[in-house]
Amino acid sequence: MNSKFISIEGIEGAGKSTQLAFIQRYLADNGKQLTVTREPGGTELGEQIRSLLLTPTETGMAVDTELLLMFSARAEHVSQIIQPALNRGEWVLSDRFTDATFAYQGGGRGIDQQRITELAQWTLNGLKPDLTLLFDLPVELGQQRVLSRNQGIDRFEQEKVDFFQKVRNCYLERAQQEPERIKVIDASQSIADIELQLTSILQPLL
Amino acid sequence: MNSKFISIEGIEGAGKSTQLAFIQRYLADNGKQLTVTREPGGTELGEQIRSLLLTPTETGMAVDTELLLMFSARAEHVSQIIQPALNRGEWVLSDRFTDATFAYQGGGRGIDQQRITELAQWTLNGLKPDLTLLFDLPVELGQQRVLSRNQGIDRFEQEKVDFFQKVRNCYLERAQQEPERIKVIDASQSIADIELQLTSILQPLL
Repeated sequence: MNSKFISIEGIEGAGKSTQLAFIQRYLADNGKQLTVTREPGGTELGEQIRSLLLTPTETGMAVDTELLLMFSARAEHVSQIIQPALNRGEWVLSDRFTDATFAYQGGGRGIDQQRITELAQWTLNGLKPDLTLLFDLPVELGQQRVLSRNQGIDRFEQEKVDFFQKVRNCYLERAQQEPERIKVIDASQSIADIELQLTSILQPLL
Repeated sequence: MNSKFISIEGIEGAGKSTQLAFIQRYLADNGKQLTVTREPGGTELGEQIRSLLLTPTETGMAVDTELLLMFSARAEHVSQIIQPALNRGEWVLSDRFTDATFAYQGGGRGIDQQRITELAQWTLNGLKPDLTLLFDLPVELGQQRVLSRNQGIDRFEQEKVDFFQKVRNCYLERAQQEPERIKVIDASQSIADIELQLTSILQPLL
C-alpha cells in the first residue's frame, strides 16, 4: 500500500492551519483518501487530555506528568486513528506528532531528550511519520501573528519568547539530524511560495 | 527522619476503606503526622485523570493509554503530595500505589509485566512504599460485599470474576516476591482480628 503518514510541525504563528488546509486539498485533488487529525487530541479521550494540558492551573504540573499525559493521548491517537487509517491504506495528516514533544517539552521545558526518547520508544515502538513538514520562522514574527489573531491565550502562548526560541532551535536540530524525514519550510515566505515548496515536496510521494 | 510511606492494596470488597480508617487512627494515636491519599487520583489533576479512567466509554481504551494515564496521575501524585509529605517528615498512607498497576493492568488485563516495570522505573526511579498492606480475600466474597453496597458500578466493577481472580493472584505473587515489604492480611477475618494483625505489623515501625 502507498499510504503515508505526514506530520506538520512548527511554533505558534507559523501558519500550520492554513498550510494544513492546502495540503489536504492537494492530496484530495490527487485522489488520496486522507485522515486529518491533530495532537494533543485526535480522539475523544485525547481531546479531554488536551484540555487538561492546556488549562492553566494554580500549582503548575510536574514535567513528567505533562510528558506522560502527552504520550497517553498519543498512544490512544495511534491506536484509534493513525494505525487503523494506515491499515486501510489511507494517508494520515497529523497537526503535530512526537517531534512536538521533543521541541516543547525537551527543548522548551528542558526535559532530558533521552527521557523523552525512552518514553517514545515505550509508546510507539519505532513508529514515525514518513514525512514531517516543519514550518519555520523567527519567533518574533510568529508571536506577532498569534497576537494579531486576538484569540484567548492558552498556557503555552503565555510562555516567553525565549521559550519559543528554544522550541524552534530544537525543531531545527531535529531536522538536521533527520533531513530525509523532516523538511524545513520557510514560513515567512508568501503563501504562494510556501505552496510551491510544499508541492515540490509532496509531488514525488504521490 | 522516621517518616514512612505505606500503601494499602487489595481487590474490590477487601475492606480497604474500613481498615484505612483504623490505620489512620492508630498512627494518629501514636503521634504520627499523617498524609492520607489515594490512587488513581490524590491531586486535583489526578482526580480528573481518575475520572477519565473510570468512565465507561463506547470504544474502550487502548491498554497502553490506560497505563500511561495511570502513571501520569502517579507522577503528579508523587511530585505534589507524597514526596513533599515525606520531605516534611510525615507518614504517607496511600490507598493503592504501583502494585495496583501490576495487579490490575498486568495481572488483570494481561499487559506484559516487563512493560509496566519499564514505565514504573521511568516514572518513579525506584520509589516504593516502605510497607504495603495487602488485604486478601476470595474474589467471590469480595464481589458479594461490593454488590451489597448497592453503589453505582464503575468500569472495573463490571469486569468478570475471573478478571479479579487474576488480579488477586498477581497481588499474591508480588507478596511472595517481596515478603519484607508486602504483608498479606486475611481480609475474610473478623474486623477485630484484622485490627490485631495490623497492630502487630505497624507497632514495630513506630
